[in-house]
Parts: sequence; structure tokens; C-alpha cells
Amino acid sequence: MSTVVAVLGGTGSEGGGIALRLAHTGHTVIIGSRDEERAKEAARAINDRIGQERAVGMANPAAVAAADLVLLTVPYAAQIKTLEPLRQALQGKILVDATVPLMPPKVSRVQLPNGASAVAHAQEVLGSEIRVVSAFQNVSAHHLNDLDHSVDCDVLVCGNDASACDQVIALIGAIGLRGIYAGTIENSAAAEAMTSLLIAINRRYKASGSGIRITGLSTSEPG
Amino acid sequence: MSTVVAVLGGTGSEGGGIALRLAHTGHTVIIGSRDEERAKEAARAINDRIGQERAVGMANPAAVAAADLVLLTVPYAAQIKTLEPLRQALQGKILVDATVPLMPPKVSRVQLPNGASAVAHAQEVLGSEIRVVSAFQNVSAHHLNDLDHSVDCDVLVCGNDASACDQVIALIGAIGLRGIYAGTIENSAAAEAMTSLLIAINRRYKASGSGIRITGLSTSEPG
Repeated sequence: MSTVVAVLGGTGSEGGGIALRLAHTGHTVIIGSRDEERAKEAARAINDRIGQERAVGMANPAAVAAADLVLLTVPYAAQIKTLEPLRQALQGKILVDATVPLMPPKVSRVQLPNGASAVAHAQEVLGSEIRVVSAFQNVSAHHLNDLDHSVDCDVLVCGNDASACDQVIALIGAIGLRGIYAGTIENSAAAEAMTSLLIAINRRYKASGSGIRITGLSTSEPG
Repeated sequence: MSTVVAVLGGTGSEGGGIALRLAHTGHTVIIGSRDEERAKEAARAINDRIGQERAVGMANPAAVAAADLVLLTVPYAAQIKTLEPLRQALQGKILVDATVPLMPPKVSRVQLPNGASAVAHAQEVLGSEIRVVSAFQNVSAHHLNDLDHSVDCDVLVCGNDASACDQVIALIGAIGLRGIYAGTIENSAAAEAMTSLLIAINRRYKASGSGIRITGLSTSEPG
């Protein structure tokens, strides 16, 4: 029994890259968008790339209804607007929120909204019945979309529900990345802030997609 | 001409570990403390370990006066209290602030003071004439003090003065670590917050000193 994942914002490059890797590793993935036609188009592009029919496109509410686990990969400005109408549909599900609160034009500068995590704010807005897990803030979309190379970046996973975090870590492992539990949902602030540092680092060192690795673990199994 | 470094809080394990590595690689290092006797004692311990006379102990004001570069490694609660009386003595010097705003007992939870960087706050308090550089937040004291092993952790370096950041990155390189420029001083928030994640990770994975590495750089020379 495989987890059905909906990727809201899957028409964008970060969500599309994760959806591509999910489909490529045998998962059924639903691309969600406000615009059903764009969702179907993005799903077709994924199926064409992998030569299999594993992605389908739906409008967001249908995508959420059909999924066990919902991944949100929309720009910060759209985060709460996208989630609020889906609150009922999300009850009982896991929401993986990859939001990074970048504030253009100074995207290489840390600017946490109200000095706190945007994902922790989503957990507050949605209420504790929806298990929100933060992940994927630091993974380069460019690398996700390049199936010829493995992604040299760990995924920091933060959330208040240990079992939900474990499921997300397992899913991350299934697409070939390493997910690492990094504390409760407020801790997402560090992952969100780190993205601006990676942008600053990309500029300074002319890198196309710097990332992070956690060192010093003798095992990536929880102790 | 070698940089003379004063380590305020060098009687503690993080500052002591950096001072040890500086002395071990041939630098003259001044241990600063509120208590001159404790500073001298910590300096003697370093000299005994390396078998050379490279560390001296002084009270903080004398340590700052004698140094080109001042490193602050005190607990968050002591940060501003330590700096304020040294403001005049610090004029024209580089202050490397390693402060991490941990709020016991919940040290594994991100709690940035007023939602912002503690080091950026020091820059505000001291004024722009003192070049404040943030560094060393994520490096395990345990690993710094173990000279038999190299430290598997990059040092994120944030600051508003590019030349000061470059000098700090060179010093970090001289003690065998890799310093990486990661943006202006506000960006220290990410490094400070990351320390709580590393504490959470240490607990979850039974690690003694997890760290971070930046991936995806073809060179660590600025582009």
C-alpha cells in the first residue's frame, strides 16, 4: 500500500521536481493547482519524462481529497491563501509544508515573518488536528529536476507529530534523499532562514544549487 | 605578521576549543575573562596541551586592547553585558561573535530573541564602527577540543563588512575549518537557529556533536 501524494504547487519547479522524483520511483502522484488544466499539463510532462503514467492533474480540492499526504510548494505570498479553503479537506491528513518566506527583492536576506517560522504559522492557522510537517526548504529545484544526478542535500524535517515526521522521512528516503528529524514545528524557522543563506552562498561562490548536509551522525536511524 | 586573537569566554569549552586550535596552529592567543586568574589558568592548560607557550590570560579589557581580532564566546545571557563596557576598546577592531541565543531549558527549540539574530543585535548595540562578524555557532565544542580529529563542520560567516568577513574566513581556514560567507549580519539568525536543530538532532540520533556542511560548491573561493 503506497502513500498517495498530492503536490499543491506541483506546476512550479520545486514541487514539480519532487513530483517528478516521486513518479520516477514508482509512486502515484497528484499534481494540484488552482488551475486544473495547468495541473493536467504538468502531470503529462512528468509522465512523458518517465515514460509511465504515474502523475495525474487535479484542481487543489480534488487533489487533497484523493491524497493521504499533501505537499505544499507554493510561493510564501500564496501559502495561507492556498491552505485556508482546504482546511476541511485536510482534516486527518499530513500536510508537508515546504514554504520558505522569501521577501523579494532581498531574497538572500533572512526575513522571517514576525520573526518566526512560516510553517509553524500554517500549523497555528490550520489547528492541531492537521499534522503539519516542515520539509524540503533547502533542496534545490534545479537538482530535483535533474534525474541524472542524486541530490547532495539533506532534508530537515520538523513537526510536532513524531509519527507524521517518520512517514515523511520514509517518503523522502523513497525518492533517494535523506530526511533528518530536527525538532518541533518552530524549528522550521532555521530551515526557512537557511534558504536565504544558500541563495547568498550561490551568489558569492557562483554555485547553481548549494545545499546542506548534517554531519556527525553514525546512523540516520533514530536512537 | 600574524593576527593576535583574543577569545573572550575562552575559559569555556567552545571558546577554549577555538583558542586551543589557534595556539596549536601557531597563533598567539589571548584568553579573556572577567576573572584574570581564570583566564591565566585556561591559558596555562592550553600551553600544557600543546607543549608551547602561545596562550596568555588577561582580564577582558586588557585582552581586547592587545588584540587585532576579538572573538566572543560567552553564554547568550552574558553577551551584551560583556560587550557594553568594551565598546570603546573595540573601536576599529573586528568582533567575531559566536553567540547562540539558547533559552534553557528548551535549548533544542528555536527561540530567536525578538525573532531576530542575537549577533545582529550586538552590531546594533555597538554601532557600525565596530565590524561585527558572526561565526562558529554550529561547531561542536567537543570536536574543537579533540585535536586528534578534524572538525567535520563548516563555519557560516555573516557580516556587513566584506573585508572583515574575508579575514575571519582566512583565520577559520588557518585552524583547519572551512568558513563560508553566508550574507549580511541578519543572516546570522539562520546559524543561531540551526544550533537548536543540531541539539535536537543529537538527541534523536544519539550523536555527540552533529554539524553542517554546505554542498554544491565547486570551490570555496568567492566567485
